[in-house]
Amino acid sequence: MIEIPSSMDIQIASEKIKPFVHRTPVFTSQSINRMFKTRLFFKCENFQKVGAFKFRGAINSILSLNKNELKNGVATHSSGNHAAALSLAASVKNSKAFIVMPNNAPKIKINAVKDYGAEIIFCEPTLKARESALEKVVKDTGATFIHPYNNLKVIAGQATAAKELLEETGNLDYLMAPVGGGGLLSGTALSVHYFSGKTKVIGAEPKGADDAFRSLKAGKIIPSVNPQTIADGLLTSLGNITFPIIQKYVSGIITVKEKSIIQAMKLVWERMKIIIEPSAAVPLAVVLENQSEFENRNTGIILSGGNVDLEKLPW
Amino acid sequence: MIEIPSSMDIQIASEKIKPFVHRTPVFTSQSINRMFKTRLFFKCENFQKVGAFKFRGAINSILSLNKNELKNGVATHSSGNHAAALSLAASVKNSKAFIVMPNNAPKIKINAVKDYGAEIIFCEPTLKARESALEKVVKDTGATFIHPYNNLKVIAGQATAAKELLEETGNLDYLMAPVGGGGLLSGTALSVHYFSGKTKVIGAEPKGADDAFRSLKAGKIIPSVNPQTIADGLLTSLGNITFPIIQKYVSGIITVKEKSIIQAMKLVWERMKIIIEPSAAVPLAVVLENQSEFENRNTGIILSGGNVDLEKLPW
Repeated sequence: MIEIPSSMDIQIASEKIKPFVHRTPVFTSQSINRMFKTRLFFKCENFQKVGAFKFRGAINSILSLNKNELKNGVATHSSGNHAAALSLAASVKNSKAFIVMPNNAPKIKINAVKDYGAEIIFCEPTLKARESALEKVVKDTGATFIHPYNNLKVIAGQATAAKELLEETGNLDYLMAPVGGGGLLSGTALSVHYFSGKTKVIGAEPKGADDAFRSLKAGKIIPSVNPQTIADGLLTSLGNITFPIIQKYVSGIITVKEKSIIQAMKLVWERMKIIIEPSAAVPLAVVLENQSEFENRNTGIILSGGNVDLEKLPW
Repeated sequence: MIEIPSSMDIQIASEKIKPFVHRTPVFTSQSINRMFKTRLFFKCENFQKVGAFKFRGAINSILSLNKNELKNGVATHSSGNHAAALSLAASVKNSKAFIVMPNNAPKIKINAVKDYGAEIIFCEPTLKARESALEKVVKDTGATFIHPYNNLKVIAGQATAAKELLEETGNLDYLMAPVGGGGLLSGTALSVHYFSGKTKVIGAEPKGADDAFRSLKAGKIIPSVNPQTIADGLLTSLGNITFPIIQKYVSGIITVKEKSIIQAMKLVWERMKIIIEPSAAVPLAVVLENQSEFENRNTGIILSGGNVDLEKLPW
């Protein structure tokens, strides 16, 4: 039996991380609501530290380490928001972060992690090279491995975003989050389960990376193989902790076309004047493609992040 | 002697427009503050209705009309944010807006105004054609002309943005607003004068459209001739109401390079994850070019708007 975060774990995470995270605002847009005859509540995690919800899970992990563990630091493999989040979280507690990154990672991401004071270990861009590089770092340094999503403290941290949203909106008809490895979605589902029984949780996933959709259908984890999507935060496979939570507490996963993701992203930029990354646009893309389902309903959406290369926009 | 809005006028405007405007949030950015060793408070009028502070002045004007005037509607010449703002404001009170626009205005702006239900009157893109088209509309329809900035109700409306900001921050060392025709800057200066005596007000202006800077120096209005700047909201000249207010209540006008405007705009997009238009970036460009002046000071900045053509970004 796999352990999952309890209601108490999420409440403790919420209290512990409070001094370190932004309580991000919940935005609404009259023009988008009018356009789709609906009521959407956007939890703006693009305004979170490092520009993504990932900081919640990272700082919760760091705050759960003992003195000795803090001294040895933390390690992970990631070239995305988790790498930046863990690096900043470690620096907050004067700990060290060791980040394994493929040697073809974009410079902008390498620099972000460096700016937070982390040590980068480059490896060949293969799963095997990544895993052995991580193993070596952990062995050499004694650092604690913090998995990007398949980790109880990380999931409890991510769950606090939905908890805060529900505190402001009360019960919703739907609450949607994008799904990659499932850290955000499983945390969201647990917060809804513990704190707002009536809300239905929906995972939003690109058709070009629909491993979570297929996993739920198959009743077992189907790994993500060669995913093709602009939503670069959603390329990973579910884990053995996130999958059973999603299986039990998520009502369903809805997949969307790339075109809808880009359209949704542009709509948020234009109408709400805020910057979100493609992954964060996937839930609104679900509304775009399934308008009648959401008509006259109250739907929460976690805007997961806002880290975009402004030189390379998809329109 | 030219009349100027009184403290009471601004307080009344503030109460009257409250149900119709967004009370926009005040954002701070730890990373930008750290970068410039300063404390900046951004009043996010990019989140205002129609995406710009202009809605404040427009709705205040509309709410000041009597029944008969409302029946005949309002008219103005503008292809920018004032046109959209007046169109929406008129529609809110079931009035009509007649907007004179040059026939070479961007389609995106024409459509925005049309979407708010205004009637557009196209004219040749010359000052003379614009003025005679406006005169004709006013004569034919009995509509009330609402000048984009040289109008007491408009200035009192724009003043409410600074009033709200000061209510949240208390006294500041500096308060900066961009200056085009001077509606926002004069309103800002009046709110500071009436409600926060100690704050110094600074106008931020592109070097390529420095007519306000030169007007203050000359002690008379120097019209803007062939201005060259990416800050397309700041091309106009001061008016005979806005100029004396600025002369009396603004501490100074600081001009900045185009490069700094673009750099400031990108910085806000990247670090704050919000979309601002070039005109709104001019005050932060002042901080960029004069870092030592702002070190360890508290500075308010009015982010005037967020209407940008996402297909044509300046980087």
